[in-house]
Parts: sequence; C-alpha cells; structure tokens
Amino acid sequence: MLTGVHHVGIAVADLDASIELYRTALGAELVHRARNEKDGIEAAFLRTGDGEVELMTATRQDSPVGKFLAKRGPGLHHVAYGVTDIAQALAHARDAGLELIDSEPRMGMHGSLIAFVHPKSLGGVLTELVET
Amino acid sequence: MLTGVHHVGIAVADLDASIELYRTALGAELVHRARNEKDGIEAAFLRTGDGEVELMTATRQDSPVGKFLAKRGPGLHHVAYGVTDIAQALAHARDAGLELIDSEPRMGMHGSLIAFVHPKSLGGVLTELVET
Repeated sequence: MLTGVHHVGIAVADLDASIELYRTALGAELVHRARNEKDGIEAAFLRTGDGEVELMTATRQDSPVGKFLAKRGPGLHHVAYGVTDIAQALAHARDAGLELIDSEPRMGMHGSLIAFVHPKSLGGVLTELVET
Repeated sequence: MLTGVHHVGIAVADLDASIELYRTALGAELVHRARNEKDGIEAAFLRTGDGEVELMTATRQDSPVGKFLAKRGPGLHHVAYGVTDIAQALAHARDAGLELIDSEPRMGMHGSLIAFVHPKSLGGVLTELVET
C-alpha cells in the first residue's frame, strides 16, 4: 500500500535560515516554496537525494504550525508516506481504527492529494498520506 | 551528497503493539528487530514501500530513548538520511559548523555505518547519517 517515505515535515523558526542550513550543511536542494494563508503556513520543499524534507514555519501564531512551535519548539512535525491510491488507503486506515483528520483527500501544498491521520491513532506521530 | 531519507525513527511505548499497528493499519512489513543493551534500546525496522520506519522503545528508563519517552512521550524521534560516503559527509557537516554527536562513524543496529548530528545544530531535529 505505501510506496515509501514521501517527505518528513520539520517545523522551523526561521524559514530562510533553515533553507540555507539544509543547503550548505546537508547539500539539500530547494525545489518548491509556497505560502498558504488559510492554514497560516509557509513551507519549502527540499530534495535530499530520493527523499524530500518540508521545512515549515507559521505565518501567524494561532495557526496549527504556530501552536506547535509555541508548545514544542522547532523540530520534527510529521511524516508523510506515499500511497498509490489515497481513497483506498484512507478507507483501509479507517477500517483499521485510525482516526482521520481529513476524512476525504484534499489538495496539498505542492499539488498532490493528501490526508492527515490523527497523531493519537499512531503513537503521537502526525502522519500524512500523499498520493504519488 | 544525500541519497534520500533512509528511515524515520519513532519512539514508542509498546514495541509489539506498535509493530502490529503499523502492519495492520499502514501495511508496513517487519524486516528486522534487534535489542542493544548498551544503548538501552529495542528497535524494529519496518519497510514502507521504498522507505523504512524504525520503531524504538527503551529497555531501561535511564537510556537516551527512555529519557526521551519520559520527557516528550511517544512520537517522532529522529530522521536518517542515506549518504554514499559517511566520512566525507561528516567532514562536510563539521566544516559547515554542525555539532556532531558521533565524530567518527560507528556500527548501527542493522549493520550500516551511522553517525548522529546534534539536534541543536539542525533546529531541534536529531539527525542521523547512514552509509548506504
């Protein structure tokens, strides 16, 4: 069902500085940057070989990422798995008893269909599914 | 330099229950399980398509994972990137100003050379390099 780890989401305090750090220290390459006012998030996707890292910061303190940063500070935020069929994967997850944040797939920040599973269903890990 | 996201490390309270959850709800496949008394850790590696998840729990409360679980609870613990030459990657990271937990590569739990970078150098993210 899963095609792999699609990306790892990391909450950062300073997006520009973090992009520069991942580029210079880890050789990651910036591929996409986007701002979503509705969700109060600005994110940059960096390529690390076959994998991707999503560096994300809050555009306002009351957004989900703003609250995460205020509560836990910068750090690992979520893990996203690729799936071939997100509707099927969501149905399977629901049948297995997972609580879904998104009961239906929605459009993610770089144009893929995504859905989040609630961290309380997966041992405290906010988990995203991405149709690839 | 990086070949991709090698695995994501997740601290769990109950290893057996977590393996079962990842198998049934996400279709992940258990590939390796090991216990390291020195580091006070028991870990299971599960394949998720092209990616891997390391579920890890503490075998004693005063181990690094035991302290993590006591302080933060279960959840995302670290991200590991694959590299082709870990000595070169470590030298590059050191030159870029990152603080290394392991100044020299050491043998990881599934037989690869690994080294950890201190989370304070990378925005609160404990980061592992794995020679692939």
